[in-house]
Amino acid sequence: MPTSAEDLALLDVDMVLTRAAERLADRFAGVFGFETIDRHVHESYVALFRTAKIRRHLPALAEHFAADRLNALAHAKGAIISPVPQVLFLCVANAGRSQMAAALLSHYAAGKVVVRSAGSQPAAEIEEPVEPLLTELGVIMPDAYPKPLTDDVVRAADVVITLGCGDACPVLPGKRYYDWAIDDPAGRPEDVVRRIRDEINAKVRALVAELVPS
Amino acid sequence: MPTSAEDLALLDVDMVLTRAAERLADRFAGVFGFETIDRHVHESYVALFRTAKIRRHLPALAEHFAADRLNALAHAKGAIISPVPQVLFLCVANAGRSQMAAALLSHYAAGKVVVRSAGSQPAAEIEEPVEPLLTELGVIMPDAYPKPLTDDVVRAADVVITLGCGDACPVLPGKRYYDWAIDDPAGRPEDVVRRIRDEINAKVRALVAELVPS
Repeated sequence: MPTSAEDLALLDVDMVLTRAAERLADRFAGVFGFETIDRHVHESYVALFRTAKIRRHLPALAEHFAADRLNALAHAKGAIISPVPQVLFLCVANAGRSQMAAALLSHYAAGKVVVRSAGSQPAAEIEEPVEPLLTELGVIMPDAYPKPLTDDVVRAADVVITLGCGDACPVLPGKRYYDWAIDDPAGRPEDVVRRIRDEINAKVRALVAELVPS
Repeated sequence: MPTSAEDLALLDVDMVLTRAAERLADRFAGVFGFETIDRHVHESYVALFRTAKIRRHLPALAEHFAADRLNALAHAKGAIISPVPQVLFLCVANAGRSQMAAALLSHYAAGKVVVRSAGSQPAAEIEEPVEPLLTELGVIMPDAYPKPLTDDVVRAADVVITLGCGDACPVLPGKRYYDWAIDDPAGRPEDVVRRIRDEINAKVRALVAELVPS
């Protein structure tokens, strides 16, 4: 049972999240009510808490996740007009394939596509070899962490690409759906993961050519 | 890519969910704005969709899940005053242990405790032997389905009981936390699951004696 010193520390996390909600309320003034924003922040926190292994930065990640979800929702309801296509990559763990695809597309599209990724059953952390293998290509993945699929990001997407998670994404009308058959890199040796990275890379380059006519 | 006939069928699911949100908006009038309710319904749907195997009843389950979450939230913010304690059982899959504990506590407490359960990584369906083993004790489990832990149900709980999922539940001040060391029944033979059921049953009976003084 929490002592009162622990109680204070715990209240602190809740207060940090509430302050995050207040910041986002300024940013989304006139788009969403405070209740919606506050719920997004707190539910994003618990959604990440459920599966994350390292929890030190969780309030900051929750704010980032909530902000991205609110952006998606604002776009879906037409409150934010974005002239660039929005792409959502989805795999089971959001720790390997969908993370690589998202980082590569962000890199090549250079702001001309909004890119998101999610998992049907997010892992505790990103697969070990993913970041160094992307660095080999000069691609960085800032702010990357496994996160569960949510309604708001499906709703915002113009293109949904599943990588080996079957039909784990609800199909909404008016979107394009692709399924890329790519092996799961989880726990595989580095040369196998490099081959998977190259497969994803080739598909992402073709997608960029389709979405961003030069 | 969806044809227009498919488009219409898909729009239908979305409309069913929106109608569910309208029903809940009547029920929670003056407590929550429509935006909050609509988000709860749609996000509850996707949260169940992510992991559920059988999807035929998913819109109805999503309405049930959203209603329960909104009840929890209303209680947490003091908009609904409940004189009885609220207990949350949590395990990894919300498919065996936490489901048995919740069904048994509901049965013995007979309305004198509000009981919920959730999982950190919900399974596709409830473990096969669980329902017949509870029926042996005259206990039924209507409306039972694996579902992810959410902020609202943690917030509403007076007592949180984890069964073998470690610290997968954020700790909020002012609540009682118990950890019951119970083996995972997933995939075990029926006699092992029966022994696990009996262990949970004994602990639940002791909890009832504590929470509901006769």
